[in-house]
Amino acid sequence: MSALHRPGRTPAVPASPSPGASQEEIRRQNLGAVLRHVHVHGPTSRAELTTRLGLNRSTIGALAADLAAAGLVTEGAPVTTRRGRPSLVVSPRSNRVYAQALSIEPDRLRVARIGLGGRVLDLRDTPRPAGTSAVDAVVPLAALAHEMDRDVAADSIRVGVAVAVTDTTRDRDGRIRIGGPDETLRADIEAAFGDGRPGPTVLAGDLADIAALAEHVRGVAAGVDDLIYLHGSHGVSAGIIIEGRLVVGHGGRSGKVGHMVVNPGGLPCECGSRGCWQTEIGEAALLRHAGRNATPGAVQEVLRAAADGEPEAAAAVARVADWLGFGVANLVNVVNPDTVVFGGSLREIYLSGADVVRQRLDELALPASREHVQLLPAALGPDAALIGAAELAFAHLLADPLHIGSAA
Amino acid sequence: MSALHRPGRTPAVPASPSPGASQEEIRRQNLGAVLRHVHVHGPTSRAELTTRLGLNRSTIGALAADLAAAGLVTEGAPVTTRRGRPSLVVSPRSNRVYAQALSIEPDRLRVARIGLGGRVLDLRDTPRPAGTSAVDAVVPLAALAHEMDRDVAADSIRVGVAVAVTDTTRDRDGRIRIGGPDETLRADIEAAFGDGRPGPTVLAGDLADIAALAEHVRGVAAGVDDLIYLHGSHGVSAGIIIEGRLVVGHGGRSGKVGHMVVNPGGLPCECGSRGCWQTEIGEAALLRHAGRNATPGAVQEVLRAAADGEPEAAAAVARVADWLGFGVANLVNVVNPDTVVFGGSLREIYLSGADVVRQRLDELALPASREHVQLLPAALGPDAALIGAAELAFAHLLADPLHIGSAA
Repeated sequence: MSALHRPGRTPAVPASPSPGASQEEIRRQNLGAVLRHVHVHGPTSRAELTTRLGLNRSTIGALAADLAAAGLVTEGAPVTTRRGRPSLVVSPRSNRVYAQALSIEPDRLRVARIGLGGRVLDLRDTPRPAGTSAVDAVVPLAALAHEMDRDVAADSIRVGVAVAVTDTTRDRDGRIRIGGPDETLRADIEAAFGDGRPGPTVLAGDLADIAALAEHVRGVAAGVDDLIYLHGSHGVSAGIIIEGRLVVGHGGRSGKVGHMVVNPGGLPCECGSRGCWQTEIGEAALLRHAGRNATPGAVQEVLRAAADGEPEAAAAVARVADWLGFGVANLVNVVNPDTVVFGGSLREIYLSGADVVRQRLDELALPASREHVQLLPAALGPDAALIGAAELAFAHLLADPLHIGSAA
Repeated sequence: MSALHRPGRTPAVPASPSPGASQEEIRRQNLGAVLRHVHVHGPTSRAELTTRLGLNRSTIGALAADLAAAGLVTEGAPVTTRRGRPSLVVSPRSNRVYAQALSIEPDRLRVARIGLGGRVLDLRDTPRPAGTSAVDAVVPLAALAHEMDRDVAADSIRVGVAVAVTDTTRDRDGRIRIGGPDETLRADIEAAFGDGRPGPTVLAGDLADIAALAEHVRGVAAGVDDLIYLHGSHGVSAGIIIEGRLVVGHGGRSGKVGHMVVNPGGLPCECGSRGCWQTEIGEAALLRHAGRNATPGAVQEVLRAAADGEPEAAAAVARVADWLGFGVANLVNVVNPDTVVFGGSLREIYLSGADVVRQRLDELALPASREHVQLLPAALGPDAALIGAAELAFAHLLADPLHIGSAA
């Protein structure tokens, strides 16, 4: 009897075949596999790498030696394997090999140096003045990074710079253009942070996409292949990961779930439409229902008051949680994820109103799609954007370790 | 100045690294690349394969010879290259190597024999009696296939069997369970069509997913990497392809877009919820607005009457087209596709009401996501399900050509 497979796990037939693989490519892939393993899972013995990667001992030995020679890993402190043989432990050189991660958030700007293996080596921030654009953030970010660079050892390898951005800029037609950073921003960051070497030194992405990546690699959704990460702040957006890959869409603008219309004829949205999901679950909606003004810290106050049982605040959270469940049901029906992660202000809404979210989800999602979905609060907190941005930069190192290692 | 990449085209860092590549794997990949090229693009000279696949002449020659020896391609009728050298043309053996494709549709059952290269070699159908389940379809499908098999040459290679299914079955909780085929159906098809050899002989998938694959490989969306294919009939579902890969979701149930709630407090849906998209754009909605009963052919009559300018029919089409644009806007905001393809009854709704669809889409989708979206009618018609099912079966041949070829 032949095995039956999940319908679409079958590889789709691409219209244009990829070019054939070469010897050099195999070596690159295998170097990447070893480096990725210690980057994600931490120090690992050669013996265990042999088992995990399905390569033989001498191959693993040669790959580890090459990575060590390039200054990307260290080998030392042998452990004794089950067969009684000593096996060298391969560790990422977190202090030497790092990514520079930036984030442009609604109220602050942050720069971090994150070592291979995901260790936060340094982290600095500065308030973002109200009314400034993302492009205005480049000069203060560069100043922070410049200070930070004084503490970096001379033989360090910076593998790349990546920036996570939440931003809204006016489009020519007067409507809000929401999404990833625009070309001006990219060019300015490139000029301030690029090192003039060829290759993708500076990478940029939407904050929700990048936080999704962080939760997927090192957070609450580690090991989960199909997930939706929802980020709430002023607006709402999502990072969608399918079969372990971030979905970015044709123009890098997927996941603008805050602009799904859930309530036709509802309140006007800043995008020009009405009844968008974020008019019901964004921070402004919570404050509106709770009868509060949008002052700094007001959202946290409402959430605290709701937890303390204050009726008006509790009712406001429940109302937002209900609409949260409504939109999650739509996304579950469309995407059929394994896990939905709630981040930003939606993390607290979810934690306070989980029963309401679940009830609405159970009512509206198809049972077959609903029954396997885990709902989880984000684990990495506000650092997710920086950790995820670093992963974006590390991905290039992991794809071709010696190219980046030796170019430094 | 370094290149800037689309944020998520960067490979995400998988939590578990894939095992290392071997010599044998390279050969398999390269054989697959050659076979895939002639499968998708038709007969191709060795010289052109050399250019397209980035492999050298002697490698291409050896790969083509191996594929010819396995009976998967022929080599012959040399063409003269630009450099004046003769170059053998590699062609798929469409008459000898085939996939058996089945489809279980609301009103009929079909079986086709589809040759490598996508040629329909034989196609037979029978009505599906009203009220029969998908499982009931297995016996008549097997009878059709049995008849068909009499005309198959003895040295033919069947690379696999795949079935596309639209089906709804009652769940234990009394609600409709909508999605891919259930395990009983798979087991029955396996018993009737499996050949007892190890490997994924029988593959099954949702009809919309499979039609999406067909339009992506050989239809109106050939060469498009990010697309949503919408299939309308009694209900509405979608096949979503992202970066050239079919999105199936955690349980193989993604794309149940007909159950996005677009009109809270709207009409009850068979899923137990209210205001689902298919209550506004399914065939029943069109007939309701047009004041017709659900008799066979009624949908086509309304569409024809609308095209002829009959006011009630035209108003019904416009109303459905308006809700069609509404839901497409939500999907465009969530997924950011390059192309949306309208299939099944939605093809005609779109063709009759394209202006209305576009107007609503322009109003509700974010400009940055909207501006690049192409809206296209499906090209392959009702055969899309069979062509796509065959692609599902061919995908396994293309992943490992000699394994399947030599096992026959």
